[in-house]
Amino acid sequence: MRLVTLLTVVSGILLSACATGNKPSPELTMSAVLEAASPEDWRRTDPNHTLYMALPGGTVIVELAPNFAPAHTKNILTLVDQRYFDGLAIVRSQENYVVQWGDPAEADKKRSLGQAKAKLDGEYFRSASGLDFSRLDTRDSYANEVGFVDGFPAGRDNANGRAWLAHCNAMLGAGRDVAADSGNGQELYVVIGHAPRHLDRNVTLVGRVIDGMQHLSTLPRGTGSLGFYETAAERTTILSIRREAQLADDKRKHLELLRTDTETFKQLIEARQHRLEEWFIDPAGHISLCNVPLPVRAIANP
Amino acid sequence: MRLVTLLTVVSGILLSACATGNKPSPELTMSAVLEAASPEDWRRTDPNHTLYMALPGGTVIVELAPNFAPAHTKNILTLVDQRYFDGLAIVRSQENYVVQWGDPAEADKKRSLGQAKAKLDGEYFRSASGLDFSRLDTRDSYANEVGFVDGFPAGRDNANGRAWLAHCNAMLGAGRDVAADSGNGQELYVVIGHAPRHLDRNVTLVGRVIDGMQHLSTLPRGTGSLGFYETAAERTTILSIRREAQLADDKRKHLELLRTDTETFKQLIEARQHRLEEWFIDPAGHISLCNVPLPVRAIANP
Repeated sequence: MRLVTLLTVVSGILLSACATGNKPSPELTMSAVLEAASPEDWRRTDPNHTLYMALPGGTVIVELAPNFAPAHTKNILTLVDQRYFDGLAIVRSQENYVVQWGDPAEADKKRSLGQAKAKLDGEYFRSASGLDFSRLDTRDSYANEVGFVDGFPAGRDNANGRAWLAHCNAMLGAGRDVAADSGNGQELYVVIGHAPRHLDRNVTLVGRVIDGMQHLSTLPRGTGSLGFYETAAERTTILSIRREAQLADDKRKHLELLRTDTETFKQLIEARQHRLEEWFIDPAGHISLCNVPLPVRAIANP
Repeated sequence: MRLVTLLTVVSGILLSACATGNKPSPELTMSAVLEAASPEDWRRTDPNHTLYMALPGGTVIVELAPNFAPAHTKNILTLVDQRYFDGLAIVRSQENYVVQWGDPAEADKKRSLGQAKAKLDGEYFRSASGLDFSRLDTRDSYANEVGFVDGFPAGRDNANGRAWLAHCNAMLGAGRDVAADSGNGQELYVVIGHAPRHLDRNVTLVGRVIDGMQHLSTLPRGTGSLGFYETAAERTTILSIRREAQLADDKRKHLELLRTDTETFKQLIEARQHRLEEWFIDPAGHISLCNVPLPVRAIANP
């Protein structure tokens, strides 16, 4: 028997089951949908595209998105394999926006990039063709269409055939300067607040934090401009970043993510729109892209 | 001369000015809009409806919303005037959701409510008539219409003539149990993550944090169900909550908020949709309700 622990806690004040409402109703609450899910509804991430960032406060686990940002993924893995990030630091923590890390001495004595590239063209969008895009039926403020691809929140524009990852909470991006090719993955940020969707297609998203968000989101805010720390003492040191594939089995967390291309995920969205839980008085009947939970669970005996 | 410090920092990675885009363009960046604003574009909050919550880490300042939640506002002020909250604690901190405070011993030895009411009918919405509703032109996932009233983000439904406050980041709500009348303001929460708009019209919103959000959002997350702390040692003690009107002048922060019923605020929204800053490659041309900044500044010599 596989013991599982659900890590992505449901955003609800109280959770219990009861019928309600005059809208087309789902049959299950989210908890019930997850309980009824089959093993095939869950997936493991690729251990070569899963990063463990060890901080003094705990480990942050990231799933990379090579399908959307192949060049940035490759460059980040090159940096990781060279242990580029080890000993660098969290340099920025801006309220309701992002936490960012990289080389705090970037301006004067930059750590060598080794085999990694210094400049990469932005991977701001890609062709929508060839993607298994599970469309979400919603009015989105920013995109004509939104949905999920391989477990990531995404936008799509059928007029120009483009698709892109969306800046929801926990998404990982590659910071850049003004030049469009100035990002390369050596400076990375994670969304810790409300989704800054105006950044979509302006900066390369390269993955998502799937565990340990609290180790980033609770860092003290920087008091400098844009939340940068003003002194070295305020920064948090990155102990290491490794591919999961490089870790001994007892150092791995054995996470599984709910697939987003399944009937179970559709039921979960229904359950979250129509809220059968007794606490709700006026279930929205709607949901927005970044409010859809992307459940993660840990398997004790994989 | 009045010295001002802009507290709500612009959410942008780099900020400089340059023309761009093929969409109808604004003439100014947000920084320029704020620089050009007249003194009349800014307002003080009512010191009797402005609360200062002193925590060991710093002070959180809240503007109450008596226009939407008159009974909850009154009850909270009664509790504040009785010093009900002093010595109570932050009892919950849930990642990407809410921080909540109240009586940690609520279940067994509840602190006396004194003159305050134990139960209040929910103030989940009110009549839209009589409100100066500045409509935001956007596709909103949750409401037919959204906009701003007295500086607060709000929704409106012209079909039933209702308006309500919206659960954007930093909004303050009155927690309740399953019964609709079980909230009374003794248990309060603040949104620290992505806007949980599914809570709109299900729980009474009673104000907004206008300063010091970082003192709530960086609190360690609780490890119990729904982010509740499991031990007393993990909780943060509330030193005091006071009306601003009760504080000596040198204890006040003298904040001003940008009015949301002005031409300047319209220009700010335009500037945030169309992003003239040089960094942007593909300005969204759109904005969502909870992405509109609500600028706050401190006046050194009021």
